[in-house]
Amino acid sequence: MGDSLVAGLGDKQCLGWAGRLAVRAIGAGQPLSYYNLGVRRQTSADIAARWENECAQRLPDGVDARVVFCFGVNDAMAENGRVRVEPEQSAEHLGEILRRARAREWPTLVIAPPPNADAEHTDRVEKLGEILGEVCDRADVPYIRVFEPLRHSTTWMREVTAGDGYHPSATGYEDFAALIVPHWLLWLAEPGPRLPIVR
Amino acid sequence: MGDSLVAGLGDKQCLGWAGRLAVRAIGAGQPLSYYNLGVRRQTSADIAARWENECAQRLPDGVDARVVFCFGVNDAMAENGRVRVEPEQSAEHLGEILRRARAREWPTLVIAPPPNADAEHTDRVEKLGEILGEVCDRADVPYIRVFEPLRHSTTWMREVTAGDGYHPSATGYEDFAALIVPHWLLWLAEPGPRLPIVR
Repeated sequence: MGDSLVAGLGDKQCLGWAGRLAVRAIGAGQPLSYYNLGVRRQTSADIAARWENECAQRLPDGVDARVVFCFGVNDAMAENGRVRVEPEQSAEHLGEILRRARAREWPTLVIAPPPNADAEHTDRVEKLGEILGEVCDRADVPYIRVFEPLRHSTTWMREVTAGDGYHPSATGYEDFAALIVPHWLLWLAEPGPRLPIVR
Repeated sequence: MGDSLVAGLGDKQCLGWAGRLAVRAIGAGQPLSYYNLGVRRQTSADIAARWENECAQRLPDGVDARVVFCFGVNDAMAENGRVRVEPEQSAEHLGEILRRARAREWPTLVIAPPPNADAEHTDRVEKLGEILGEVCDRADVPYIRVFEPLRHSTTWMREVTAGDGYHPSATGYEDFAALIVPHWLLWLAEPGPRLPIVR
């Protein structure tokens, strides 16, 4: 659940990092029904407004239902001289999402927003990512910090720069997924807040 | 937009026929943002209730927005001695969906529901597919008749039988997609109701 990076925009293989996680889980024997609910241009406000209805359609009672979130890049985007969503608001949206997910008894995993080709925007994404991580810590929800390794990944930074400034092609998404895979497989095998957070 | 066959259940590559169509379109140079909105177990009633909200989230004003539908297998499923949705009701749901899509100015393409490993269920799916095709004819919406070629495809029938009776693995989905690709690429290049219907 998230934005265009979740949807895998720019990947000619139409998998993105999320699809690659699904492929890995199924390859590892997990009986996964995979739904990709990333939507272009959406901020945490857009996602907070739709995520629960869309998940409820897909996660009937009685199934082992999990939700992975990744958003924030659009929140931190500057438009008309200000960011689309202020960090405090982003944090509120995530906090409310995690509260509702807990009430629904859907274990959640949150992935940090990744860097892009715009240095100032990327600085704001980094700060927002720290704030989102604190929200997850308080909610006892695992948070995967992919920002720093991706900023130092020549593949990621080269591909987002060669693309539209935000979205890599297949190889960049592979790198993104590779950072998450060990946590993802562990989380699927044993849910809950006890997953060690990698900093 | 549709059911578990749209979602690509059973495909370890996590693409299904819909993902393969997206890959082909992007490979052909179409600047496609692909959203898969298939949901397990959903009938035409479930889809009629959610499709417009979910599409509205993803298809903002001003974009060349298209919607492909495929459903019906769950409608024709027998539960407790009767089908989940009667064919007349399925036809009404599709008719209403196509009317709303036209009002939204979203060009639509409808794919027939495919056969499965249960002979009686498959007979009902075939009859329902004919009815859905008539709805599309009346609405001047292109309808791709994949039922007959799939029933005679040894790959499709072998794979759905080897699977859960309904879902093939990757090769079956490739065959499904291959039947649609020529129409799909033509429809993307030139929308509207003039697409020749293949019977």
